[in-house]
Parts: sequence; C-alpha cells; structure tokens
Amino acid sequence: MKRIYMDYSAGKPVDTRCLEAMGPYNQEIFGNPSSLHLYGREAKEALEKAREQVAKLVGATKAKEIIFTSGGTESSNLAIRGIAGRARKKGNHIITSDIEHVSVLNTCKSLEKEGYQITYLPVDRSGFVDPDSLRQAITPETILITIIYANNEIGTIQPIKDLGVIARAHNIYFHVDGVAAIGQVPIQVEEENIDLLSISSNDIYGPKGMGALYIREGTRIVPVSFGGGQEYGLRSGSENLPGIVGMGKAAEIARDELDRKAKHLIALRDNLIAGITSRVKESYLNGHPTKRLPNNINLRFSYIEGESLILSLDMMGVSAATGSACTSKTLEPSRTLLSIGLSEVDAHGSLVLTLGKATTEEEIDYVLEVLPGIVERLRSMSPLTPKEYILQKGS
Amino acid sequence: MKRIYMDYSAGKPVDTRCLEAMGPYNQEIFGNPSSLHLYGREAKEALEKAREQVAKLVGATKAKEIIFTSGGTESSNLAIRGIAGRARKKGNHIITSDIEHVSVLNTCKSLEKEGYQITYLPVDRSGFVDPDSLRQAITPETILITIIYANNEIGTIQPIKDLGVIARAHNIYFHVDGVAAIGQVPIQVEEENIDLLSISSNDIYGPKGMGALYIREGTRIVPVSFGGGQEYGLRSGSENLPGIVGMGKAAEIARDELDRKAKHLIALRDNLIAGITSRVKESYLNGHPTKRLPNNINLRFSYIEGESLILSLDMMGVSAATGSACTSKTLEPSRTLLSIGLSEVDAHGSLVLTLGKATTEEEIDYVLEVLPGIVERLRSMSPLTPKEYILQKGS
Repeated sequence: MKRIYMDYSAGKPVDTRCLEAMGPYNQEIFGNPSSLHLYGREAKEALEKAREQVAKLVGATKAKEIIFTSGGTESSNLAIRGIAGRARKKGNHIITSDIEHVSVLNTCKSLEKEGYQITYLPVDRSGFVDPDSLRQAITPETILITIIYANNEIGTIQPIKDLGVIARAHNIYFHVDGVAAIGQVPIQVEEENIDLLSISSNDIYGPKGMGALYIREGTRIVPVSFGGGQEYGLRSGSENLPGIVGMGKAAEIARDELDRKAKHLIALRDNLIAGITSRVKESYLNGHPTKRLPNNINLRFSYIEGESLILSLDMMGVSAATGSACTSKTLEPSRTLLSIGLSEVDAHGSLVLTLGKATTEEEIDYVLEVLPGIVERLRSMSPLTPKEYILQKGS
Repeated sequence: MKRIYMDYSAGKPVDTRCLEAMGPYNQEIFGNPSSLHLYGREAKEALEKAREQVAKLVGATKAKEIIFTSGGTESSNLAIRGIAGRARKKGNHIITSDIEHVSVLNTCKSLEKEGYQITYLPVDRSGFVDPDSLRQAITPETILITIIYANNEIGTIQPIKDLGVIARAHNIYFHVDGVAAIGQVPIQVEEENIDLLSISSNDIYGPKGMGALYIREGTRIVPVSFGGGQEYGLRSGSENLPGIVGMGKAAEIARDELDRKAKHLIALRDNLIAGITSRVKESYLNGHPTKRLPNNINLRFSYIEGESLILSLDMMGVSAATGSACTSKTLEPSRTLLSIGLSEVDAHGSLVLTLGKATTEEEIDYVLEVLPGIVERLRSMSPLTPKEYILQKGS
C-alpha cells in the first residue's frame, strides 16, 4: 500500500545533514560544556556555534539572545511564566489571542488560576487578530502580549509587525509563538518588534526534543526550573549537545532554503486546495487563501466528521489530521475553528493536510484521486447529510 | 598527546546500540504518538515499549508509572514542585539533605522563597544521612522527603531503603534523585519504598537531553508546565521519540550489564584510589571507601587547589573535575565537601575522577604515573605549602 504522509505539522523526519552534523557529538565530542577540560571546551565551542546559527535564522543581533530548550512547549512556558513571574509587582494582565497553540493557551489558563488576568483577543473569519482590538485591550496592568505567528491548524499568518509596534509603543513585552511558522516564512525579531520568540527544532527538520527561545537583551525574565544554571541561568540541565548542534545545522539550512521551499510548497498547496474544492461539493477552505503557511491546508466538508475522514484516508495510506496532534486526545471541537466562526458541527468536520519538503506532485494527485470518493461514501452514511443531497447524488 | 577522559559523571558517550535503535525514528518512523494515523500508531508503539524498558530497570510494576522528560533536572523539578504544588493545603514542609545535586537543592531554595519550609538534613563525615535525623525532622506539615540516592561528587550511597521505610510509615511522599546512581547500583523502587525517582538517559549511556521520572501510581502531583497534555498530562510537549527509544534501549542494556560493569569499575576505582593515596603524601579519599558509586573517586591533596590540579592534568591529556560540572561556574567551595566537615581550603582542593565503561587499566596507570609529579610541582609553587614540607622534599 502507498504511504503518503501529509501531517508534517505533527512531526517531521530529521534532515540527513543535521544527523551528519550531530554524529560526532554522540560518541567523540561528548563532554559537558560546563567542564573546564579539553572535552568541555570542545563541547562549549559547538554550543556557541549553534547559538549563532539559530540567532541568524531569526535575525537576532546577538547569539546570547538565544537559549536552548527541549522544545517549543518549554520555550513558551518559560517565556510566559518567566515574564509573568518577574513582572508580578508591575501588573498581572496578559493579552493573548483566541487561536493560540495549547502550549500558550494552557500556560495562560494556569496563570489565570494564580490570579493573573488574561484577555483572549477574538479573531475574524480568516483568523486575524485586529491590531485595534489589541490596542484597546491594553491596560496599565498589562505586562505581556503573546500572539502566535501563524496558527498551526489554519495557517493564518498574523500581522506580527503591526502588533509588535503596538506592544513596543506601550512598553509591553511581546512574545511570539513561532513554532508553526519558523522555516516557512521569514521571521525577523528586529524588524517585527518581537521581544521573545519560541521555536522548535523538529519544525525546521532538526532533531526532536529540541527548541529555543529568543529573548531580547535586557528583557526581565526569571527561570521557571532550577538547577545548575545553564543557558544564562534560565534553563538548568546539562545541555543536549547533539540536539543543539543538530538544531543549529537545521537553522542554517532553513535560512538557506526558505524561499525555495516556500515557493515549492505554495504551488503544491494551492493545487491541492483548488483540486479538492473543485471536485468535492460543499467543501470549503478554512483560513485565508494567501496569508497562510505555505504547507497548510485546512478544509471542511459539510455533513461529515473529521475523524471518520482521517480514518478512511489512513486506510488508503494517507496520514492526515483533524486539528493539531497536540489536541487530538480531546473530543472537543477545535477552539481555533470555533473562534473563526464555525458551528460546532463544522468545527468537527475539518481535515488538516500539512505538506513537507519531501511532498511530491504525485502524492497530491493521489489524494485528489481518493479523497472525493471517501467524502462521498462518508456522506452517504452520515445521519447529518440531508436526504435531498443523497437522493440528488444517487440519481 | 594522550586523551584520557575521567569525567564520566559530567557526560558520557552514547552506546552504539542505542544509536542503532534510534536510527529509524529520525527519518522513517517520525510520526507524532498523538496522531491517529499509521505514522502516529507506530510512534505510539515505540513510546510504550521504551516506557516498559525503563520501568523494568527501576523495578516499577507498571509502565505507566514512568514519564519521559528532557533530563534529570527536569525530572526533579517536576517531582518536587509537582508534589509541593499539589500538597500545599496539606502542608508546606519539605525535608532534604545537605548534599543534594543543584537540581534538587535549587528547586528547594526556590520553594523556600514561595513560603515553603525546607529542612536540610546534615550528613556525617562519610556523607550519610542518619535515618534518626530524618525521623526527628518530620512534622505534621511535612509533605515530601527528597534525598539523593548516591551523591554525584563523593559517591556516597545513602541507606535509601531505611529512609523510605520512615517516609512510608509517616505517609509522606519520598522522592529520590537517582541520576548519579542509575545503572551503577540496582535501584528498585518497590523494595526501597521510593515514590518518585529521577533518572537521566545519558547517565546510562543513552542519548542526551532525555530523562524520566518514576511516579508511583496514585501519587498526587500536578504538572509544572502546560500544553498538549502528553505523558499523562504531566509533561506537555511533543515526545522526543528517537530520544525515548534510545533511553529505553539504554535502560535495557544497563539492566543486563549492571553487575558486570560494577565489578569492573570497582576494581579500577580501588586500584586508582590505593595507587594515589600510597604514592602521594597527604592525599585523602573523600567519602566512604566501599559504600560509594563504583565509578567515583574523590580525593583531596593538602596545600593545593582543585582547579590548578585539573588544569595541570588537562595539559597532560587527562580530563578530570573538581566538584560537579553543574556547579563549576561558581567559585565557591563544594557544598558537599563542606557538609562532610572539610575546611574551606580542603573543600577547594578536591579532585573528582569518574570512570566509565570504556576506562582501561592503562588509563589508570597513566594517571598514577603523572599525578604524583603534578601534585609535587603544584605544592612547590603553592603559598599554602608549609616551608618544612618543601625543604624536606627538596633535601
């Protein structure tokens, strides 16, 4: 059977060049960067090189503005709880959006229980945060604004630069969850007025279990875990040097290949969207047609559930998702889809296809070949499908 | 020049068998265990297999009592802050020892700032916690006892089972930092009455950036970071599957090889200790001669500083440590050595040699060959050395 993977936002293969770069750090250069001896110095050198590679990818002016973490979730937890903990005396208000990844959403909710006030900005039907609504939400108590660069489910790319200008004008820290966007669109912390940026390694085809947090020099933040004081005191624990070296290499590659990759993915994405919406009646694109991540396709099909759809696709060898992998354990409708105005039924019926560097035209063609039939079959079985629809089709 | 590594407690090479086991999970089976499709199911299966391998190593009865983290530091932070956060209404008192690793010590200190009361139990000259002192420290407010299984600097192995009996009798959770001990001595959570156990992957020659926390079923603990609710809701963030698979394999190997490895290391360790203390005047072993980790040697030499010693050794190709890598950034004397009764001067003068699976007799011989001369030279230059000593040597 064919094996077609279209769930790249849930996990990616590691680039061979990253694995090659990591190689020596597992068995030869395996020292601890904190050690004073030869092995330690070799490790330290590799650590600092990777820091520079990641700094370059996000446009940070200083390598020391990058700290390494175990992933995007840890980065966002540190950013949000680290700022909140430090600024508690100044204020207790945080502004975020209705369509954040759970790592930001649930961190904000945890702070709510601790007495912080959280404003969840609404989004429009395409998923955009309105800069005016941000401006209006700011109070003298506001200590942090945290907005996702591009949503992981519907791919909508926010006007981050505009939001950053507002944060800067009010002297409020601006954290951006760049996990879904990094390597797909050019994120530039200086130009976009970003004070803290969460990114993950695997999202740029680097090793899993690695992430980084950009923290603008001078940002007042406290650690949220404690130990040996590695990573400038903000992230204790012996450094995962192979992972760090691999992420550094991934950052270098991502920067080099970004434009080419984006062009390739956008072409495939738009073919798939056009192909499906033209072949399947009552199928609709969620999110914005152009201001979306190059690899993201989020569709809804009237009368059927997303889960049945992905199970049927799975039987045909196509791995896809409904919503994000990080929220697949709940049976609730997608919060993001509800926020852009979909009904509960429609929010259950989404299909998320995310493409990757290795996605081919043949794979797109195969999905276009099998999907209409699957939708047809599911609709014929669904109690939600209006009788007229089935009669009409069967006629 | 020779390259002799005797700082295995700071970092270890990854076992080739672990790297081989991890291989397919970087580029072939790269799915997200939360995904419902084929790639997700393959990943989930590998995740659960690794959980069983780690459970077996520590003698846990159920695989689900293991949760994967990014390392020992994260495990201990989660254990301590997770229990403290959940039990806050029950009590605010935590008991630990004077010779914990910084991941436990600094987590306790952070809780002290939040209003928790911490008792730091003293240790005797060998580094042992007295079970009676633990018993006496318990109050109705005590919610957690956290003790290191074996100290990372002086290698002293605590009477964990006895301490566990006391914790159990008082119905208080017992967390053990097993990072330095795991794979070297048989840790058995059931027999030793351990409720929570922190371990790290690289300490058993598994991949870096990985750890685990054993949590006895029924233990009331809250998460300390937030997101997708992976690892039974206690450790959010997409799973580092290659790392998890590698750690699982490392656990399997560690269990198989433990006895043989320990025997080999104890022989080398005791040769090195006997060789140095017999050849170098006024050299002493810190810690206990037999109840110590098989790979740990901690020596002090009157009149000279540890840092000069390791820099001189480094020039001769030997990588060693003074204290732990995790505390090397501070210039303060070792807290552990002060706690076992050493003076500040003596606590600055320690040399920590930690052996590994690959350590050979030839390497031991080389250290025995170069170390006495280095000590002699440093003493002749040290302002601390008494005149009589130098005259006597020079005559």
